[in-house]
Amino acid sequence: MAEYIAPIRDMQFVLNKLVGLENVSRLPGCEEATSDLVDQILEESGRFSSEVLSPLNQSGDKEGSSFENGAVRTPAGFKEAYRQFTEAGWNALQFPPEFGGQGLPTIVSTPVAEMWKSANMAFSLCPLLTGGAIEALLLRGAEEYKRMFLPRMVEGSWTGTMNLTESQAGTDLALIKTRAVPATDAELGPHYRIFGQKIFITYGDHDLAENIIHLVLGRTPDAPEGVKGISLFIVPKFLVDKHGSLGERNDVHCVSLEHKLGIHASPTAVMLFGEKDGAVGYLVGEENRGLEYMFIMMNAARFAVGLEGVAISERAYQRALAYAKDRIQSRDVAGSDKSVPIIRHPDVRRMLMSMKAHTEAMRALQYVVAASMDIARRHPDREERMRHQAFVDFMIPVVKGWNTETGIEMASIGIQVHGGMGFIEETGAAQHLRDARIATIYEGTTGIQANDLIGRKLARDGGATAKVVIQMIRECEAELAQAATGAEGAELAAIRESLARGTSAFAESAAWMVRSYKADIKAAHAGAVPFLKLAGIVCGGWQMARAALVAKKKLDSIAKGGTGDAAFYQAKIGTALFYADHVLSQAGGLRETVMHGARGVMALAEEQF
Amino acid sequence: MAEYIAPIRDMQFVLNKLVGLENVSRLPGCEEATSDLVDQILEESGRFSSEVLSPLNQSGDKEGSSFENGAVRTPAGFKEAYRQFTEAGWNALQFPPEFGGQGLPTIVSTPVAEMWKSANMAFSLCPLLTGGAIEALLLRGAEEYKRMFLPRMVEGSWTGTMNLTESQAGTDLALIKTRAVPATDAELGPHYRIFGQKIFITYGDHDLAENIIHLVLGRTPDAPEGVKGISLFIVPKFLVDKHGSLGERNDVHCVSLEHKLGIHASPTAVMLFGEKDGAVGYLVGEENRGLEYMFIMMNAARFAVGLEGVAISERAYQRALAYAKDRIQSRDVAGSDKSVPIIRHPDVRRMLMSMKAHTEAMRALQYVVAASMDIARRHPDREERMRHQAFVDFMIPVVKGWNTETGIEMASIGIQVHGGMGFIEETGAAQHLRDARIATIYEGTTGIQANDLIGRKLARDGGATAKVVIQMIRECEAELAQAATGAEGAELAAIRESLARGTSAFAESAAWMVRSYKADIKAAHAGAVPFLKLAGIVCGGWQMARAALVAKKKLDSIAKGGTGDAAFYQAKIGTALFYADHVLSQAGGLRETVMHGARGVMALAEEQF
Repeated sequence: MAEYIAPIRDMQFVLNKLVGLENVSRLPGCEEATSDLVDQILEESGRFSSEVLSPLNQSGDKEGSSFENGAVRTPAGFKEAYRQFTEAGWNALQFPPEFGGQGLPTIVSTPVAEMWKSANMAFSLCPLLTGGAIEALLLRGAEEYKRMFLPRMVEGSWTGTMNLTESQAGTDLALIKTRAVPATDAELGPHYRIFGQKIFITYGDHDLAENIIHLVLGRTPDAPEGVKGISLFIVPKFLVDKHGSLGERNDVHCVSLEHKLGIHASPTAVMLFGEKDGAVGYLVGEENRGLEYMFIMMNAARFAVGLEGVAISERAYQRALAYAKDRIQSRDVAGSDKSVPIIRHPDVRRMLMSMKAHTEAMRALQYVVAASMDIARRHPDREERMRHQAFVDFMIPVVKGWNTETGIEMASIGIQVHGGMGFIEETGAAQHLRDARIATIYEGTTGIQANDLIGRKLARDGGATAKVVIQMIRECEAELAQAATGAEGAELAAIRESLARGTSAFAESAAWMVRSYKADIKAAHAGAVPFLKLAGIVCGGWQMARAALVAKKKLDSIAKGGTGDAAFYQAKIGTALFYADHVLSQAGGLRETVMHGARGVMALAEEQF
Repeated sequence: MAEYIAPIRDMQFVLNKLVGLENVSRLPGCEEATSDLVDQILEESGRFSSEVLSPLNQSGDKEGSSFENGAVRTPAGFKEAYRQFTEAGWNALQFPPEFGGQGLPTIVSTPVAEMWKSANMAFSLCPLLTGGAIEALLLRGAEEYKRMFLPRMVEGSWTGTMNLTESQAGTDLALIKTRAVPATDAELGPHYRIFGQKIFITYGDHDLAENIIHLVLGRTPDAPEGVKGISLFIVPKFLVDKHGSLGERNDVHCVSLEHKLGIHASPTAVMLFGEKDGAVGYLVGEENRGLEYMFIMMNAARFAVGLEGVAISERAYQRALAYAKDRIQSRDVAGSDKSVPIIRHPDVRRMLMSMKAHTEAMRALQYVVAASMDIARRHPDREERMRHQAFVDFMIPVVKGWNTETGIEMASIGIQVHGGMGFIEETGAAQHLRDARIATIYEGTTGIQANDLIGRKLARDGGATAKVVIQMIRECEAELAQAATGAEGAELAAIRESLARGTSAFAESAAWMVRSYKADIKAAHAGAVPFLKLAGIVCGGWQMARAALVAKKKLDSIAKGGTGDAAFYQAKIGTALFYADHVLSQAGGLRETVMHGARGVMALAEEQF
């Protein structure tokens, strides 16, 4: 089967026409991110994805990472691929130049990361986790630790992990028990000894890098109970001296790997800290503020997992499309002499359109948020920064929750397009569903995202940010109304109508949610996930509508003798129309569920289940 | 983890209050199916499911069936379980007494089969396929062959298979190439020699039984091209003499097993016929009518697969519920001193309610159709038979398509309730998703069901049967309106409103579909699956509404001093209300998709994908 091909044409369309890459490249520190350089980066990362990562996706899944004699071995080819990955500088793309990074903005690292995830999600988790650990150190690490750890982590010769979960403490980190005892061995500088067991540690141990830098949540002896008594520690697999050289093996070990539904190549470790004298750990920032630091990083981590939804949808779509063009079965429903490729069958085409439309909507939304992350970080004007930060904060749970839920659905449709072959593992379609299934769970389940959305992001500011978003969508509707003339005018009018209805449903639900959050907190929470889904559908539809507007302008210009890829722009409008009729159309029903659904959710006593 | 417990209380409710078991037991030949006997059967099959089949579900998945030295071995414990299964007479439940069966109606064998499927779907496929082969022989086999094969097949000491698919012929059986050459070895009686390769043969080989009776589609030398030249043959693994004794090994062999996403314990074989002299095969019925015979059996087979959707939902629900009651995590959103079982969190409860509501709706619809199958077969009055047969024909694609699609969704929600543990295979939740994923594919994909629904079942009679169904739902609405007084009156009114809206959406979509099927066949097909989903949601909602009506009457009677399980009936109303707000609410959006969605489906040329 053909390997993954990066959808560079659509990525460029989103970057240049929907996101405003130009504006981002005018930000201080982003001057290098010109359209030309970005094109070059996309070409190169696309090639690396197709040639190096994609060929290892299925073999990595089949073989899986293994744990033998106390060591984790990644599947055949992963070590060499990771060497090439770091040598080509891919690990360093978005990190600060002072630690060896290339300092490129999120809007550039996002499509690149999408490619890694599409080509080989299990592989991509290693740099993802390293990136998370780097961010934590950049944000709150002491200078000394930054110098000790960051250059090698940015380069990728050391990787990072996040050690949060314990068997009794998943979503509820207040229940963490891992202990961190201040220690006094002068040679090691100020440090703690860490004791405890962590589970679900992605790339907790492996053979790709010389060292692994664990970031670990734990409690000091006198820490307050609950979330306010959790501190964050750096625990390297091998101790590191001040010059960055590797020293002794630290007292932290992988004790087993989980047997998972998907992402088999990514080792998910149970990690034991302090089997003997305690693992040496260095405090990040101040004691008892570990969870706060984690939350600072949360946006980036959740954004990255949302991107997995986009990436798996794209990959599943490519595979289903190739099969549908190739597989000959049954005659055309409108009549044909012989059996035809199944892409000619309306229901197969419906499934492919659903995958295409959802993927493009999610991608556009994801990249728009990425650009806002850059602006929020780097814009010289404080108000502009705050405005974009509010947008980012609002959108992160939507992007994380909706894109990952949709990713599962699209991967499942990808199987369906294959018929019986989809159920056979050799085909490769099933792996995407298995891999996608984790993304609605880790970095906060969809329920947690939805609670974050209705609480911190919606109710806390009384719906102000939501109103700004709704106002932007209303402006897009007005533009659609104006543009709905001539060729493709009917399509734009239909898109506008569906978007308008969806936006009203979203606005009414948001207003209800703000009221209910005060009046009836349980009712609000009962409607949280349907509300998140509604927000995702409408915001995705907004981006599809924006894309249709751009396409319409391009087509008008082409009609007047201008140049351009008319087929691409016509397809954009057709895809936006599909989205309007098949996806945005769900908005009204979701409003009903949000605004009335709580009575059924809470109707039964626990014993009645 | 606790084993599967058959939901006998809900099964009895559906059988006695929604289906009218009494009426079925008045049918000729069903006199034995009294409520008492049925209760006893449900108890016993429930026990067998919990004690024998359920404990092998996860181990069977992990070990899988294997193929070594030309033989298939089922997982540890399967052979013994199958022996107990047949010895207890479970295989013979629904077959005619003249061949050793117990002759019980479909309405009795259906809940029993649901239990096998819930407890161990992979195991249940063996009797399912045997049952299909028995039905084919009963319907069209010569008396001689019935006597040769049926007693042992009914008993279960021989099993059956259906050999349809070839690598180039899946949905499109016109493309079948397997050859059947008339042969003349007098000792064997009239027979053919079969040559060809079949794929995806469920339990095509195994070690559970002494003999395997393959039913095989193939072409005789002078057969017309396409579907009109396909004949059906009986090909036993071991030849059988007139006295039913086993003879020589026939020239049919398993050459490999597929590596599948789920149902690992069920061997899916590639079967080679005629490696040497050709496999000896006996014609069923007449030449060139094989596909017609297959279609006669199709209703039963599709009904059985639809039941897998119900069964997996039930199993996934039980597992998620047990976890949600047990797992302590995070405080109550309305405030609590400490962390609580996650069932107290509104979003977890929403997920559990969704599983519960969907499962009950699907079960009720499935059993209602089962009863109509019995009436259509056995009622003395011809018109009554025809009326019920039309209902069954209409509902089969709905039950098959909607229940299986919903089964996947519910199994996925089951994982979500478990959080990170859901992704770990040891938990068992992931297996249900993997197992459920085949059910929308085999025995005709959801797309094929939807085409059947809009074509043969809806457009062919100009929507007449659909109108009868809609009329029945309208009558239920009227009853709801009347009953919506006093306690639970508001709930019944809300259910009625939602059902009324859903029914209108269904009726309008059905009318559109009848028109479009003539005017624009591609548009009709583009909306077929959304229409099927709409039909499923509304017909499921109808059954939930009927259940709520029964519950309301019971509660009124209890309020007046009558006896009964008030908590159960209140839960029924609450569950129906949940269904109204969370599921029926999708109907309006689906109408939009059906009636307008084709324009987007067909908007792109193939090259634009």
